[in-house]
Amino acid sequence: MQPEWERLLSDKVAHRLEPSLIGEMMMLVKELGAISFTAGEPSADLYPLEDLRESFDRAFGEASLFSYYPHNGGLRELRRWIADWMKSDGLAPRWLSEEEVLLTNGSQEGIHLLAEAFIAEGDAIIVESPTYPEALLTFRRQGARFLSVPVDRDGIIPEALEKVLRTSGPVKFIYTIVNFQNPSGYTTTDERKAKVLDLARRYGTVIVEDDPYRHLRYEGEPQGSYFVLGGDEGRVLYLGSFSKIIVPGIRVGWLALPPALAGKMTELRVSCEISLPAITQYAVWDFMKGRDLPSYLERLHGVYRSRRDALAEALRNECGPLGLEIDVPEGGFFLWGKIPWVRDMVDFARYAIREEKIGFIPGSIFFSDPKEGAGTVRFSFAKVDGGLAREGARRLARALASYRSR
Amino acid sequence: MQPEWERLLSDKVAHRLEPSLIGEMMMLVKELGAISFTAGEPSADLYPLEDLRESFDRAFGEASLFSYYPHNGGLRELRRWIADWMKSDGLAPRWLSEEEVLLTNGSQEGIHLLAEAFIAEGDAIIVESPTYPEALLTFRRQGARFLSVPVDRDGIIPEALEKVLRTSGPVKFIYTIVNFQNPSGYTTTDERKAKVLDLARRYGTVIVEDDPYRHLRYEGEPQGSYFVLGGDEGRVLYLGSFSKIIVPGIRVGWLALPPALAGKMTELRVSCEISLPAITQYAVWDFMKGRDLPSYLERLHGVYRSRRDALAEALRNECGPLGLEIDVPEGGFFLWGKIPWVRDMVDFARYAIREEKIGFIPGSIFFSDPKEGAGTVRFSFAKVDGGLAREGARRLARALASYRSR
Repeated sequence: MQPEWERLLSDKVAHRLEPSLIGEMMMLVKELGAISFTAGEPSADLYPLEDLRESFDRAFGEASLFSYYPHNGGLRELRRWIADWMKSDGLAPRWLSEEEVLLTNGSQEGIHLLAEAFIAEGDAIIVESPTYPEALLTFRRQGARFLSVPVDRDGIIPEALEKVLRTSGPVKFIYTIVNFQNPSGYTTTDERKAKVLDLARRYGTVIVEDDPYRHLRYEGEPQGSYFVLGGDEGRVLYLGSFSKIIVPGIRVGWLALPPALAGKMTELRVSCEISLPAITQYAVWDFMKGRDLPSYLERLHGVYRSRRDALAEALRNECGPLGLEIDVPEGGFFLWGKIPWVRDMVDFARYAIREEKIGFIPGSIFFSDPKEGAGTVRFSFAKVDGGLAREGARRLARALASYRSR
Repeated sequence: MQPEWERLLSDKVAHRLEPSLIGEMMMLVKELGAISFTAGEPSADLYPLEDLRESFDRAFGEASLFSYYPHNGGLRELRRWIADWMKSDGLAPRWLSEEEVLLTNGSQEGIHLLAEAFIAEGDAIIVESPTYPEALLTFRRQGARFLSVPVDRDGIIPEALEKVLRTSGPVKFIYTIVNFQNPSGYTTTDERKAKVLDLARRYGTVIVEDDPYRHLRYEGEPQGSYFVLGGDEGRVLYLGSFSKIIVPGIRVGWLALPPALAGKMTELRVSCEISLPAITQYAVWDFMKGRDLPSYLERLHGVYRSRRDALAEALRNECGPLGLEIDVPEGGFFLWGKIPWVRDMVDFARYAIREEKIGFIPGSIFFSDPKEGAGTVRFSFAKVDGGLAREGARRLARALASYRSR
């Protein structure tokens, strides 16, 4: 006799988990050997594996890294380095120290911890429309009720935000991706940040600033952060990540927190897994600390900039005549597009990968209400060189033509 | 104006997190330079760092490990190796394959995932009395209501379990540590397992079998597992760990799951952190797969056996006359003791570390109702050689004598 799982499992696991469509598309790409415009991850040919190998090797000089790590926030040296880095970049107020930096298993663990810390079933949170779907899945699992606010090229639209806040009742937090947003590629200007922060203050909520792409700016002026703008008030929680500038698989991210929350969030993380592997944190610290960061990043920027331009051109040439419009961002990994006549983009994405072996991400999954995303589509250029861009764009054009004439 | 955190935070973070007393004692040991009988972790002089360094180095031959790992359950090779290992050890039914093995960041993450999957606020779970306090903290955070069942030298007492089940209403699971239990050192016999499993079946609940110490048996006959005894029924969830036999800081553990749960639990883990570092999983696989495991483990056993005996003898000689009684287990890391005249062991532990620089863990923290643990105490011998054992026992004796005559 099998156990009655339906009665034993919590609602969140029995009813509120959904498989990720991005995961499904990436699996299909792999299985079918398709050309992929899907993955929001750095290009493997840019992984600095030789340097990273040396950093790991040096970690073996420190036997204490192999015990349960005694500092619950994670490797002190890396937390201190991050605090100094954020301050020197103008992203953090002067009070930020290692005590307010909590290392996480990628910034997704930070999202998970924030979901646990803020959301009880039925609580309202505000998300951008569109936004990062893996965050939506995590917030939904926790029982969040989504209120969505549209973004334009300058970020969250303050008037739209205020309209929501005025009628919504209490909101636990506003979740926003500030630079080269996934999926839209939009960057929130500092002027918008000031207005949004002011609204958060007036309506008694806080801001969760997710910022994994900041250091992938290929042109234009860098913007500041909500975290520094918030100053001493402590109304902003900042999510950072090394995934996009070193390697994603090393799984090191961080939360920079208001002092009032640092202790609680650290205890919460301990209750999730005691400690994270200090050896990977050490390797990241060892890798970053001596580096000439501007020239390291400039190399990445050069490659990604030319890939962005090549994919944008190929898609405009091949698919523009079939109705595709695209936006070209100043950084990050994504081109955000629209094919107005395609009503069910999930259906078309499955069709295109089966029929023409070209993978991309339908835009509807980036909206808490998928209907809002009709006709939208995300292309990642991070792993696509010029030849692949042209061939992929040709396949997409063939798929569009045959799908339209079905 | 600071945000009103009290209103924004979830109950679990605002009210249900407690700092770990084990953590506090370990910190005090470090700060005061005390002799420590505190830590339930392997001895750093037994860390196989040279071999592990080579295994990490080989991981750098596989660039794919540094991306987001495509298999959500974790490194396939390690999951397959674990499934084969458990079957060859007689710990798993024949159906176990890599599909039912989910890699975790240490088995504490497994405990966290199970808490999320089963416990909603107010749900009852059964725990042993005494049991592992970090699991209690995680279950409590999730809102669990504890029903405790005493253990004796053969494990959970079935009559006591039935008495609880008869009157408790629905119970989400029974959490049990089966080998060299933390803190008691007791091992559940297979005869007891059969009775407990039968009760779980009759009362419609499941068993969570936590088994980090199994491979540290220094004498006596190994017992089987609930997981294999449960057969095809799928009523048992098994938590395994490499922390005690390789190094704890690498953070690799696993859940072996009933097939009906494997998919859901994997999705839950993905929503927590997308992927774990595949490089550490690869290093564990590379380290384990070619090894002559019996002779590797025998070396560990030899060291820990002699440390167990040395600490037991020193404590009996020095502290027996002051009222300390201890139990000597067949494996694991812990001596479980009683000093009946010490009513507030937390107070005495803080006194002993301050006054005589000797650290140990007061037993009350291992009970969901601390009053049940009056007079009990846990000593870890894992990191204590003969000389430290004698000096530590002398300090403890001095602390006892002066504490009694205050």
